[in-house]
Amino acid sequence: MQYRISKKMQNLKPSAIREIFKALSDPTIISFAAGNPAPESFPVDDLARLSAKIFAEEPSVALQYGITEGYPALREDVKARLSSRFNIKQDGQMTIITSGGQQGIELLCKTMCDEGDTVICENPSFIGALNAFRSCGCETVGVPLGDDGIDLDKLEATMKACPRAKILYLIPTFQNPAGTCMSLEKRKAVLALAKKYNIIILEDNPYGELRFAGEEIPTIKSLDTDDMVVYSGSYSKVLSAGMRIGFICGPEEVVTKMVVAKQVEDVHTNQFFQMLCHRYIAECDIDKHIEGIRALYRRKCNLMLSELDKNMPDCVKYTRPEGGLFLWCTLPDNIDQGAFIKKAMEKKVAVVPGQAFNCDTSAPSQCFRLNYSTPSDEQIITGVGYLADAVRSML
Amino acid sequence: MQYRISKKMQNLKPSAIREIFKALSDPTIISFAAGNPAPESFPVDDLARLSAKIFAEEPSVALQYGITEGYPALREDVKARLSSRFNIKQDGQMTIITSGGQQGIELLCKTMCDEGDTVICENPSFIGALNAFRSCGCETVGVPLGDDGIDLDKLEATMKACPRAKILYLIPTFQNPAGTCMSLEKRKAVLALAKKYNIIILEDNPYGELRFAGEEIPTIKSLDTDDMVVYSGSYSKVLSAGMRIGFICGPEEVVTKMVVAKQVEDVHTNQFFQMLCHRYIAECDIDKHIEGIRALYRRKCNLMLSELDKNMPDCVKYTRPEGGLFLWCTLPDNIDQGAFIKKAMEKKVAVVPGQAFNCDTSAPSQCFRLNYSTPSDEQIITGVGYLADAVRSML
Repeated sequence: MQYRISKKMQNLKPSAIREIFKALSDPTIISFAAGNPAPESFPVDDLARLSAKIFAEEPSVALQYGITEGYPALREDVKARLSSRFNIKQDGQMTIITSGGQQGIELLCKTMCDEGDTVICENPSFIGALNAFRSCGCETVGVPLGDDGIDLDKLEATMKACPRAKILYLIPTFQNPAGTCMSLEKRKAVLALAKKYNIIILEDNPYGELRFAGEEIPTIKSLDTDDMVVYSGSYSKVLSAGMRIGFICGPEEVVTKMVVAKQVEDVHTNQFFQMLCHRYIAECDIDKHIEGIRALYRRKCNLMLSELDKNMPDCVKYTRPEGGLFLWCTLPDNIDQGAFIKKAMEKKVAVVPGQAFNCDTSAPSQCFRLNYSTPSDEQIITGVGYLADAVRSML
Repeated sequence: MQYRISKKMQNLKPSAIREIFKALSDPTIISFAAGNPAPESFPVDDLARLSAKIFAEEPSVALQYGITEGYPALREDVKARLSSRFNIKQDGQMTIITSGGQQGIELLCKTMCDEGDTVICENPSFIGALNAFRSCGCETVGVPLGDDGIDLDKLEATMKACPRAKILYLIPTFQNPAGTCMSLEKRKAVLALAKKYNIIILEDNPYGELRFAGEEIPTIKSLDTDDMVVYSGSYSKVLSAGMRIGFICGPEEVVTKMVVAKQVEDVHTNQFFQMLCHRYIAECDIDKHIEGIRALYRRKCNLMLSELDKNMPDCVKYTRPEGGLFLWCTLPDNIDQGAFIKKAMEKKVAVVPGQAFNCDTSAPSQCFRLNYSTPSDEQIITGVGYLADAVRSML
């Protein structure tokens, strides 16, 4: 049979990162490629204890169909935290549970965009979001990132040039892959531009709880007085990635439609784990738990930075993140990036090549992304050494 | 802000059934509206015991990101059962785990259809599937159902008339809502038509394990020698609906693309419950468990039928299903269906009006759907009595 695959899916490739993840079944490879939380960050004992209680006390609720919007008590928990921790008001807003942060991104795109519409993104940006937009038949148009966030002049020029732009996708806090934070001034300016051109902002904030240095910057959503922002968050980086629980908070009119889109995708998110999340938040000290994760990543990030400082030739530049999971490195022009990635792989160190994060994936990149949350201390020390060797051998 | 919602989502309404489900928080209402499995069908003790083992033995795998295709051991379980139980060969096919059967339906549509394409459906059909197709911007075209499945002449006429038809969506076994089974001859004829017009068949089989009377009929997928069929199954009706675990088996070229579509929707299905499913299948006797569910539904279905036989005026016709979860009832022409549904609701009995299942939701219906898996025996007896009263009062 000659399969007639849809135009939007025909040329869409699996995420390079997910593919690398599959290749990592070789245990001798040191992977700086994943974006996985550290396994020691999962509160296993508490989750095991609370699971047993759910099976004992409410099995019929936990194993039965639930409602699409999410388990009511967990939605209340999320709303309370958005309000108290992130200063995000709830009036006129609707907050629902999603199957990971990823689902919220895709649902918003489906809700707002028809095929041929445009999503404006930071360039580089999160590959999972870029592919979600492409899977809806949207064009992704990139605007370059500076050290303090997106280039405002180029953003406005892009908005002006793209009448079919419906969404501006931003990761303002610990951007993936660049690790940078958007300044408060830029957050305000971006809001004003979105209002001027009637474009919804999707503020993706999976790493917002993971600041381990520097000063907190308000979320864009907390500055929004015109209901322009849909905010996406996740428990993947603070409780468990494998359980697939995230949330969306946005204008009621938009999120009501997202609920319909979610209903036809998976009816609702795993009910048992929504209840488990709720019990964890109700009965344990999530702030203390998150403080522990921050301390862990601060230590791991500092270890990777000090190893880079000691070993890596000066011609390689890298960010010094204040939170999140990633370092972003730039090779000098005289080193061929593809040859470097290949050489690193020969030394059994996996990194993600920068072009995976480009809106235009055919555009070249001198960059690569390093993750410090997943590898062990020993792997960080050994792996960075190998990467430095690879660079030196190419000078 | 004036939100620019996408054309495909603008007019899409939430599923009437899901909305009824939400309204059922009133505990005095007798609901025949849901499609929920009976709570006593969940193997709670086994799941609790196996969950504790997963937390003790493999917490880092269960709480961490997994791969999009699904937990490998569970995929092997599914493949083995498809082959041994349903005679579905695996060569040239790919089998992946989905977040419930619902997700597989939506993923196939996204993979095959661009906006404006057509999905041909039985009329009436499963509302969750119809809405999934609509959410992808597809037109749903209905072909009437007879007692032994879809009308073949009208199906061919529709295929001929719709050059943009990409998918033929069928629930051949215990059709939802009609409860009927497609005959073996029709299954073969439908395959031949699909081949002639180069249209993929989506065989949705959530109730295939729930036959409690009559002779088994082979799945369409098991008869398919041309890789025309994508088969969707689910653990929702045999283990737990709330866990959201289903699967898809179809031609490798198509399912490979569905994996990419799934990756951008939810990355992967809840990892812990995939492992729990696998352990249940490996360590417990799922056949014996399913036999128990069949006995339960046989009894409940027979109870509802005998109450209808005793109490309902002869002018109301209803199916006598050999499996699944539903009865399909037809009112005589002289009873206004909307007024009847309203009267039933006044008597605190909820049923689903037939037009919810129409491809053209503005088309009238004299039918309503009754579920016998969720209500208690007492509720079945009382509720059917009230429905009969409602009919009598309208004669």
